[in-house]
Amino acid sequence: MEIEVRKNVLGKNDRLAAGLRQIFADKGIFVINLISSPGAGKTTLLEATCTRLKDELRLAVIEGDITTTRDADRIARHGVPVYQIETHGACHLDAKMLEEALSRFNLDELDLLIIENVGNLVCPATFDLGEDAKIVVLSIPEGDDKPAKYPGIFQRAKVCLLNKIDLLEVSGFNKESALGDLREINPEVIVFETSATRGDGMDVWCNWLKEQVAAKQR
Amino acid sequence: MEIEVRKNVLGKNDRLAAGLRQIFADKGIFVINLISSPGAGKTTLLEATCTRLKDELRLAVIEGDITTTRDADRIARHGVPVYQIETHGACHLDAKMLEEALSRFNLDELDLLIIENVGNLVCPATFDLGEDAKIVVLSIPEGDDKPAKYPGIFQRAKVCLLNKIDLLEVSGFNKESALGDLREINPEVIVFETSATRGDGMDVWCNWLKEQVAAKQR
Repeated sequence: MEIEVRKNVLGKNDRLAAGLRQIFADKGIFVINLISSPGAGKTTLLEATCTRLKDELRLAVIEGDITTTRDADRIARHGVPVYQIETHGACHLDAKMLEEALSRFNLDELDLLIIENVGNLVCPATFDLGEDAKIVVLSIPEGDDKPAKYPGIFQRAKVCLLNKIDLLEVSGFNKESALGDLREINPEVIVFETSATRGDGMDVWCNWLKEQVAAKQR
Repeated sequence: MEIEVRKNVLGKNDRLAAGLRQIFADKGIFVINLISSPGAGKTTLLEATCTRLKDELRLAVIEGDITTTRDADRIARHGVPVYQIETHGACHLDAKMLEEALSRFNLDELDLLIIENVGNLVCPATFDLGEDAKIVVLSIPEGDDKPAKYPGIFQRAKVCLLNKIDLLEVSGFNKESALGDLREINPEVIVFETSATRGDGMDVWCNWLKEQVAAKQR
């Protein structure tokens, strides 16, 4: 019974997500779905990304949070269009929530849509939102064993941002071990080392985003 | 339909958990359910706890992980009985999984049972395991906004361990703000500041555990 319902829920979500993917293709919008543990630095990274890209690309942000509009308020300060989905307890965003949120934007005037999922390394991984790429953020203080212990999202991610790289020395994080596990799970994954607060890697990451937008609109 | 099934799942879990709670009461075992984001330091904290308590209390550990036996291997090295529940993708432990795991232990020879849940600040909060106390571990690098953004677990926790306190200065964590939000959500919560690697607060935390065991066996 539980398994059957879960299959139905995922099947329904996949159909909705396929519809959204078609819309994003028609409009030439590159869409990323940002996933991580709580506190890996997604919002700070987004703020740094908005600062660098808002004059070059037409971008918008959708914030997923269980409660509070704190993250959306932080993004709004940068003058970027943002909409907050409050999930009221739900542990992930789904395609239905995203579809409703999209009505708040003029999709003809967008190049890049960034979705910040609920802070959760497990559940968001299996809910397709019609995005072009899942981006997993692994922050250094979380430890080097996370790719091996939470393989679902690391397997599905196109990019892994190794964030808070400025804390590498104080955290005893074994980068070789983490990257070894990551490559084994997902040989294709692109890795960028970033520190949103100090600025490391932000240009490389933003250039990658610009290339993806250009490729999608070609 | 989905809501109905969720109600049934939780109802069934609560009945099982009530049965487990009765067993723990009959046997005089104090049981804690350790919950946090991935990488908040639960396992390191557990290792430091085992080192301090294993000669004074008869303790055992149950490790919940999506995959791998890494955490269980780390605990086993300390000579403490440990059993690993692999959830195979599931984002939380439930009472049924715990019931099966308990058959691996002689419950007549236990004072303290520590359950380390799957790293997830959301889903484990609503699944009762028959424990005496939910313990939430909030690590400093996750940021001071977590109690406000993930109130579910902070509301239900008897203790909040503010872990990795050694990273307070490099993390820009506003302790006053975090504790203010926490007290608003849960005025009764007990807070210990800990660093499992440096040792801060470990004696106070372990003394609290010993008192709880003594009170339960009185």
